[in-house]
Amino acid sequence: MSKPKVILAFSGGLDTSFCVKYLSEERGMEVHSALVDTGGFSPEELKAIEAKAYALGVSSHVTLDVVDAYYQDCIRFLVYGNVLKNNTYPLSVSAERVFQATAVAKYAEKLGAKAIAHGSTGAGNDQVRFDVVFRILAPECEVITPIRDLQLSREAEIDFLKSKGVVQEWHKAAYSINKGLWGTSVGGKETLTSDGYLPEDAWPTQLTKSTPERISLEFEQGELVGINGKKSSSKVAAIRELTEIASAFAIGRDIHVGDTIIGIKGRVGFEAPAPLIIIKAHHSLEKHILTKHQLYWKQNIGDMYGTLLHEGQFLEPVMRNFETFLADTQSNVTGTVHVQLNPYQFHILGIESKYDLMSSVFGAYGEMNKAWSGDDVRGFSKIVSNQTMIHRKVNEK
Amino acid sequence: MSKPKVILAFSGGLDTSFCVKYLSEERGMEVHSALVDTGGFSPEELKAIEAKAYALGVSSHVTLDVVDAYYQDCIRFLVYGNVLKNNTYPLSVSAERVFQATAVAKYAEKLGAKAIAHGSTGAGNDQVRFDVVFRILAPECEVITPIRDLQLSREAEIDFLKSKGVVQEWHKAAYSINKGLWGTSVGGKETLTSDGYLPEDAWPTQLTKSTPERISLEFEQGELVGINGKKSSSKVAAIRELTEIASAFAIGRDIHVGDTIIGIKGRVGFEAPAPLIIIKAHHSLEKHILTKHQLYWKQNIGDMYGTLLHEGQFLEPVMRNFETFLADTQSNVTGTVHVQLNPYQFHILGIESKYDLMSSVFGAYGEMNKAWSGDDVRGFSKIVSNQTMIHRKVNEK
Amino acid sequence: MSKPKVILAFSGGLDTSFCVKYLSEERGMEVHSALVDTGGFSPEELKAIEAKAYALGVSSHVTLDVVDAYYQDCIRFLVYGNVLKNNTYPLSVSAERVFQATAVAKYAEKLGAKAIAHGSTGAGNDQVRFDVVFRILAPECEVITPIRDLQLSREAEIDFLKSKGVVQEWHKAAYSINKGLWGTSVGGKETLTSDGYLPEDAWPTQLTKSTPERISLEFEQGELVGINGKKSSSKVAAIRELTEIASAFAIGRDIHVGDTIIGIKGRVGFEAPAPLIIIKAHHSLEKHILTKHQLYWKQNIGDMYGTLLHEGQFLEPVMRNFETFLADTQSNVTGTVHVQLNPYQFHILGIESKYDLMSSVFGAYGEMNKAWSGDDVRGFSKIVSNQTMIHRKVNEK
Amino acid sequence: MSKPKVILAFSGGLDTSFCVKYLSEERGMEVHSALVDTGGFSPEELKAIEAKAYALGVSSHVTLDVVDAYYQDCIRFLVYGNVLKNNTYPLSVSAERVFQATAVAKYAEKLGAKAIAHGSTGAGNDQVRFDVVFRILAPECEVITPIRDLQLSREAEIDFLKSKGVVQEWHKAAYSINKGLWGTSVGGKETLTSDGYLPEDAWPTQLTKSTPERISLEFEQGELVGINGKKSSSKVAAIRELTEIASAFAIGRDIHVGDTIIGIKGRVGFEAPAPLIIIKAHHSLEKHILTKHQLYWKQNIGDMYGTLLHEGQFLEPVMRNFETFLADTQSNVTGTVHVQLNPYQFHILGIESKYDLMSSVFGAYGEMNKAWSGDDVRGFSKIVSNQTMIHRKVNEK
Repeated sequence: MSKPKVILAFSGGLDTSFCVKYLSEERGMEVHSALVDTGGFSPEELKAIEAKAYALGVSSHVTLDVVDAYYQDCIRFLVYGNVLKNNTYPLSVSAERVFQATAVAKYAEKLGAKAIAHGSTGAGNDQVRFDVVFRILAPECEVITPIRDLQLSREAEIDFLKSKGVVQEWHKAAYSINKGLWGTSVGGKETLTSDGYLPEDAWPTQLTKSTPERISLEFEQGELVGINGKKSSSKVAAIRELTEIASAFAIGRDIHVGDTIIGIKGRVGFEAPAPLIIIKAHHSLEKHILTKHQLYWKQNIGDMYGTLLHEGQFLEPVMRNFETFLADTQSNVTGTVHVQLNPYQFHILGIESKYDLMSSVFGAYGEMNKAWSGDDVRGFSKIVSNQTMIHRKVNEK
Repeated sequence: MSKPKVILAFSGGLDTSFCVKYLSEERGMEVHSALVDTGGFSPEELKAIEAKAYALGVSSHVTLDVVDAYYQDCIRFLVYGNVLKNNTYPLSVSAERVFQATAVAKYAEKLGAKAIAHGSTGAGNDQVRFDVVFRILAPECEVITPIRDLQLSREAEIDFLKSKGVVQEWHKAAYSINKGLWGTSVGGKETLTSDGYLPEDAWPTQLTKSTPERISLEFEQGELVGINGKKSSSKVAAIRELTEIASAFAIGRDIHVGDTIIGIKGRVGFEAPAPLIIIKAHHSLEKHILTKHQLYWKQNIGDMYGTLLHEGQFLEPVMRNFETFLADTQSNVTGTVHVQLNPYQFHILGIESKYDLMSSVFGAYGEMNKAWSGDDVRGFSKIVSNQTMIHRKVNEK
Repeated sequence: MSKPKVILAFSGGLDTSFCVKYLSEERGMEVHSALVDTGGFSPEELKAIEAKAYALGVSSHVTLDVVDAYYQDCIRFLVYGNVLKNNTYPLSVSAERVFQATAVAKYAEKLGAKAIAHGSTGAGNDQVRFDVVFRILAPECEVITPIRDLQLSREAEIDFLKSKGVVQEWHKAAYSINKGLWGTSVGGKETLTSDGYLPEDAWPTQLTKSTPERISLEFEQGELVGINGKKSSSKVAAIRELTEIASAFAIGRDIHVGDTIIGIKGRVGFEAPAPLIIIKAHHSLEKHILTKHQLYWKQNIGDMYGTLLHEGQFLEPVMRNFETFLADTQSNVTGTVHVQLNPYQFHILGIESKYDLMSSVFGAYGEMNKAWSGDDVRGFSKIVSNQTMIHRKVNEK
Repeated sequence: MSKPKVILAFSGGLDTSFCVKYLSEERGMEVHSALVDTGGFSPEELKAIEAKAYALGVSSHVTLDVVDAYYQDCIRFLVYGNVLKNNTYPLSVSAERVFQATAVAKYAEKLGAKAIAHGSTGAGNDQVRFDVVFRILAPECEVITPIRDLQLSREAEIDFLKSKGVVQEWHKAAYSINKGLWGTSVGGKETLTSDGYLPEDAWPTQLTKSTPERISLEFEQGELVGINGKKSSSKVAAIRELTEIASAFAIGRDIHVGDTIIGIKGRVGFEAPAPLIIIKAHHSLEKHILTKHQLYWKQNIGDMYGTLLHEGQFLEPVMRNFETFLADTQSNVTGTVHVQLNPYQFHILGIESKYDLMSSVFGAYGEMNKAWSGDDVRGFSKIVSNQTMIHRKVNEK
């Protein structure tokens, strides 16, 4: 009888290395490892991880590149919606997990595997995000989570691996780092408590430029398509280019304090120069182009899009409705945004767009207009205060 | 027969100086000027304005100090609600106008005046804010707006004043500046178009410190009560102290792009170091202390509180309901927030609070918890994905 | 020199008859009358109104039939959004006005008229709805509102018409009735005060059936397409058929209490059998087919769609975004709804749909399920109560 | 060694009778049964249940009367918020469960019990509501759910009881009925599928009156305090009186289709004459007294209050904030509402209140007003259409 196949979401770290050996040797399974690339790995890193997997004895290893789908099916909506969780965090990691899980579920179906394993621990958001996607896309698969279930210490995992002949230096990094197209998260030490900021050297990217620069970002229908007058080869490429430019200024660092899906509070550092600049630039453009009603409702829906995404509910049907709404608001969000980059900080200088409603044709703010009179405004003021005026009179009696 | 009394909201500038002469000499009214102080004037400035008023021939002049009411009845709710219009602007000017108009309306009642005059032009928000408050609080008073109605040019106003014997150097500032307890607005030149940032010397406050500093802010039930371990003499004093500390770093500058009440887009620069730091610090504290449902609903209500305030609807009864809601959420928002001040920029370092829900007792984010098991989370994940799972199955058929 | 052309929105009543004579004889204009049909007129009525217009001396008269556009561009979204203003009123009149004004504005453009007249009074919603649409679609046209501006009494209007040779019996109906595809409004007497219901004979449609009937309504992607198993010739026809069936039971009467756009409260009776049955039936179908997140957000957006429509803001760009969202939610809202009709009342019996999520495959409510265990629910309950549990512990200290 | 104490939420039915024997004889526990009365039991029923409990061998039995707390801490907020889940269901059962669980948790603390048992099955909402409350209020207690965990058939439960000497006729009712102060739910047969209405004799209360009646309801600050001019002895008494009056007309029946907490859809019949009349009457009063902004926000918050209550989240801190908000809106909601009762149906006739904003002093809807002019409305219309007008012009280019 053949061994049961299991697809393991593999990262090359201690936890998922443990899983390879545990699944194959303790559970008697045929382990097929898969690394899902959401934009955070160099070709060298991918090769090294593949080598590790085979060294641990997997039956097969595959790298699933989902960067384009990740941009097309999610990141662009995060931009349309100006999504910053708690007004701070671009949801760098939350969004990735869903695409990783989806790729793994599809791969399991392709390989005919009836089991999926992931190395999540039992205290964070990722376990839920993985579980939920697998439950929906692969409800017939068993989901195995050795790290969560066995609750082994780091040392116990290393000992187990040693006992299986895997002798390796398992470097315990001071900070746990997760990198993807939409930002890098940095957790550990200071972020484990409520007080304390990450020290300078904990940030993966360091300040290398100190002379301020001005850049211009070109948007078409809500998407970044070029920088400094040069069209990028793709929208993903535009994000990568902006990341490189802005990283030199160490822009986009902060600490996110949030509610985990399981109800506890958590803190995590992140650096996300491109997401923060793109969202702020995009929002500035929208402030000029959209009406106040559009801005209000986009914010409500964008926030909820972010919240459900954060909570692993990307597959909820309402998310497709939100995406349709958000995309529909972007038809005119086209123009150029000028941005000033300074060390550790940036600000928006201004925008140019042929859809700009701040048009001098109709009278500028603070100057006398041409399309209405003082009497019109006087009438307006009277009518908009009617109900409160009546309320006051009636309640004064 | 005695002349009809008019209360003039007076600032000492060209427009309201014109109004004094126009109302008294062209309209034959007894002009009583009132300057409402919302925290932006020094004693010397107040004296100078008073002297100007009498020199122009007012029958009486008064300074109405509403700083405490402004804080107590409005600013603290802006803090409770973390109100930043369009995620940027602390509504520095919007809020003031309502308190100025209210003080003038009450003063008119006290003096038995049946007319009120303000110097607003016909293109901005302030005319509506003044009109609306007067309509509600003094519906029996005529509201006279000479500048809006006559639409005179600056030169015509100066000529008129000359013809009435008022010869003075009317300095045309490059930027129009409005200062109050909750921030300073700076409009002109660059802000009149969609593109362009204010030059360094346009900002009223200049950078004077370059060595980073760490400060701590003490909050009690949502209000800033002390800085660096020292209790302030009052909550208003705390804001003034923080303004002084942070101004040296030129923190809190930005440009707000917004929708005016009358439907056109406008841009205005502002510097508001204390409001921005207080709101971001307060929000950080709340992220640790309040539940996710509280944070979500506070944000919705805080945003609408800001929007209605911006639109001159402070007196709408729902605003009192919002204030009650916001205040009710603050009972535990007590603790200390550590903030790092850098030139042009600040960030939150962390918080301390005995109400912090990020308590190590129940398992920290990313570490194994103590009050639930991996199986509990597995069950949770199953149940929260039920509906989407069923939806998928049903719609796959 | 030729007389200036004016397009008059004409209904054949006293007010707009006055307008014909006033505009032509007092203002020297060439009056082109237009009646916009939103589904409330019989061919005979249309002919009679046309005859009246010519008798009054209009230069031309036209009937603009907008029923299909009204359904396609508005009513179907009111159904998708289950829009009942204040949980009561299907916005029968509000929606019509926008389509009437739009048709008039386009007709003015076609005829090259630079003036538009409507007969609204100065106290209701309709004046604003007409003004707003004309301002947006025909900003270059003068909008003339003789009734609002002259504030003549009924008698004065009749006298004026007499003086111009128009002698006619102007019957003063006890109630003002407005009929359209989406319902009939009935205002007067009792509705002018806060207390009192319309008497039986004030309702245009009387009870003629007392034996209960069961009908079935067929929906496809959110739209009513057939009744009792028979496909209607069009969606407009389906509404007309249901109106006829349900009118016999005098279903769909109520009194709406609402806020007018100008801030006063108003009451109006209405009978709208088809809209009320369609909306309740459609909503029932959705409760079975959509997820709870979809239902929640649809309700928020549907409500706001109704509110902006009511306030004459149909042309606001956000309305198009709302429509896109609402339409996107309807892809599966297909099925049959069974309805019981009783005298004065109806209720939903149940639904059938292949998209029904109340599927017996996954365990019915109240019976043990098959896709999860009691332990899963126990885990779920633990995790969803985590934050409140922690909050309680922390705040108990 | 003494046996461990367990508090059993006891109803006298088969499931909880099974629990008594199972807990005492199979688990060796000392069973203390508690029946929590939320207004649905007569004194005779309470006595009979107590007798049953002792006959089964409980160590003690107690009736916990929480009717007043249920009204004061929950029902009145459901009225303030006009809470009808999915615009239909007054949450009759959902609300009760929380108060039952809370009373049991407190009783467990009082008796020093370290275990609590409830008889919920594994497929409905109640299991979660009980679990959640116990987890929060009695986190140190073990929660035992024999019916959910053992998944026994009805027959197996009866056999087990027989084997323990309990021989009794366990009548299997066609419908499961739950009665409380805020309504009665009726589930079974027809409600288990998507199509089909309850037959006439399935409704616990039958039509006994056919002559229409008019009644008047007196509200003070949002609460029903008297009927037909007679003050009730308490607010709970007022609900009971109205229930008696309206039950004779078989008013308030419907079927609720909803989302269970665990993600499946469910249907349940209910009769709730008093809740439906009170909520509709209260809402009518509010439509006259509150401003449109108050009505809008109350509806949003009322809906969410109902949703979280339905989902067992009554103890979430935000619920206290919602209650504070809702109560704050009620200060003027005082007046009389006239209601017509017909067989199976009622409607609101009108209201009287000194806080009514539909005041004739300021011009009635449809008649010319006194406090503003046609020109004021014209100006208003211009200004409110400004942004859309500009948007159109800019996007036409």
